[in-house]
Amino acid sequence: MEREHYDFSGNLLPYFDMRRYLGFLPIGGTYLPPPVPAITPTVSLQLGPIFGLFKLDYLQPGGSFKDRGSFVTVAKLIEEGIDEIVLDSSGNAALSMAIHSLPAGIRVHVFLPAEVVPQKLSLLIRLGTVLHFVDGDRMEAHRRAREFAEREGLAYASHWLNPYFIEGTKTIAFEAYEQADIPDYVLAPTGSGTLLLGLWKGFRELEKMGEIPELPRLIAVQASGYESLCERSNERNDLADGIAIPEPPRLEEMKRALEETNGFCVSVTTPETEEAWDWLMGAGFLVESTSAVVLAALWRLMETGEIPDGSKVLLPLTGSGLKLT
Amino acid sequence: MEREHYDFSGNLLPYFDMRRYLGFLPIGGTYLPPPVPAITPTVSLQLGPIFGLFKLDYLQPGGSFKDRGSFVTVAKLIEEGIDEIVLDSSGNAALSMAIHSLPAGIRVHVFLPAEVVPQKLSLLIRLGTVLHFVDGDRMEAHRRAREFAEREGLAYASHWLNPYFIEGTKTIAFEAYEQADIPDYVLAPTGSGTLLLGLWKGFRELEKMGEIPELPRLIAVQASGYESLCERSNERNDLADGIAIPEPPRLEEMKRALEETNGFCVSVTTPETEEAWDWLMGAGFLVESTSAVVLAALWRLMETGEIPDGSKVLLPLTGSGLKLT
Repeated sequence: MEREHYDFSGNLLPYFDMRRYLGFLPIGGTYLPPPVPAITPTVSLQLGPIFGLFKLDYLQPGGSFKDRGSFVTVAKLIEEGIDEIVLDSSGNAALSMAIHSLPAGIRVHVFLPAEVVPQKLSLLIRLGTVLHFVDGDRMEAHRRAREFAEREGLAYASHWLNPYFIEGTKTIAFEAYEQADIPDYVLAPTGSGTLLLGLWKGFRELEKMGEIPELPRLIAVQASGYESLCERSNERNDLADGIAIPEPPRLEEMKRALEETNGFCVSVTTPETEEAWDWLMGAGFLVESTSAVVLAALWRLMETGEIPDGSKVLLPLTGSGLKLT
Repeated sequence: MEREHYDFSGNLLPYFDMRRYLGFLPIGGTYLPPPVPAITPTVSLQLGPIFGLFKLDYLQPGGSFKDRGSFVTVAKLIEEGIDEIVLDSSGNAALSMAIHSLPAGIRVHVFLPAEVVPQKLSLLIRLGTVLHFVDGDRMEAHRRAREFAEREGLAYASHWLNPYFIEGTKTIAFEAYEQADIPDYVLAPTGSGTLLLGLWKGFRELEKMGEIPELPRLIAVQASGYESLCERSNERNDLADGIAIPEPPRLEEMKRALEETNGFCVSVTTPETEEAWDWLMGAGFLVESTSAVVLAALWRLMETGEIPDGSKVLLPLTGSGLKLT
């Protein structure tokens, strides 16, 4: 049973969606984009000796947890009078920023790597973003986007660097806490680190408010071949395009998040991800493959004993599988 | 601002998802399928002189409001010890029943019309449903499914007839009331009538509990060429496959829902639906085209004056557009 009436220093608002936490966001709230992120269900499932807390954060207006960050970012852009922005993305972040920016009248340039998933592309076209295709990988798209923004005098608003994005993703920690109290471990798919850093910020704020006595241990889950926190492997994980980011700009902060929570990093392969993905689909969680890395990691850590029996483990499921056709 | 603490005869549970209303559902709750439906955001937007309350009910585990009905139906099937069922569907209902049934160990037969949207098909295959293709339309799929169920001695569990489905969809009324109080009008995309009848039941229960003094007016929105409540038009609406159901089995109940709420029926064309769909996408509401019929209907009724200025109108957005690739 969930408890509903936590204190949060008396600053919760009576909404059943992310606006519940407006009092903790660095925006005035005079303009909020119409696709308001949901409070997503957290579902407990016993996984052998472990209590799995699956947070269905793919049930968001743009189909991923990134909507939390985009919602806050766009509200802030409007407050600042900015009406044209530049992003780089493998797809989800661009889709998310597009659905929040376009109703706000903000023109969105997206720099995409050559290997972008075609299904995500057609939605971006439908939504009227300005697409810039880059003959190169995800890191090259990032470099080209920043060059373009500088040359044209436009705001670079990718979640990789923008602090408002993390203000949005921190609300996952708030919700998980209200829904299922304090987990022992939190597993975060980690490429650019915006979920990891958001969770870290959220739990730290809960600690400061006196809601929780200490932080849960954060575990960064990475894709093999694209590790930045774990040692780089040779073999590449082909099922984790959402976190295939080998050189995230906030690496030092990400390391601190692990250190300060007594956490660590784990990297998973294609077959491990695939097996976990099948399990999730069979459980009725219709997610994209990147979302499966957290379960793959949990299974490994149960085997090695790094996550002990009886632990309560939060598994955010980050991206919708409805796009898989 | 939403009010959170309604009474509901003291029977609300402290969840931030559909389990909040378990006390009002005809299931024991010992088994609940893992893909728990969300409480979806309700977003107010001023539409000229009208207050539009957009309920983002496409943010559900299977991408449509139907998950509410499937969740209750499958919980009940498990209580009854049923492990194989037969459905007919144009796609959304099958996807929804599949993600709830498969983790429960229930085998799902789906009878599909020839014109099924291919994107929905590939997900059904991925989820392990048993597909039966019917050389005919939606009504023919319905007849063939019922024949098959009878011949094989299996349960026919389509939402068209099953009463548990409506018990689930009634929770949309509960949520909308908690989020935005009592609307003057509620527009429901209406083919088989499971949303219309669910809303009717939900608001009637609120009236019985003493929460609301009278029912809002229910407006059934139909697709031109497929009308059952409105007069049948010649021209067919090609953008509303979810409600292209010309002979719904519960027609008499649907008529009563309109009569008893002083409601009526309106039918919209392809161009009207398309214009409304573009508007919704531009507002950041990534929905499938069937969902747009409610806004198309509202625009028409504003023009004709049938919905007067200053009215509060609930517009449930029923299906996700993430499938459109």
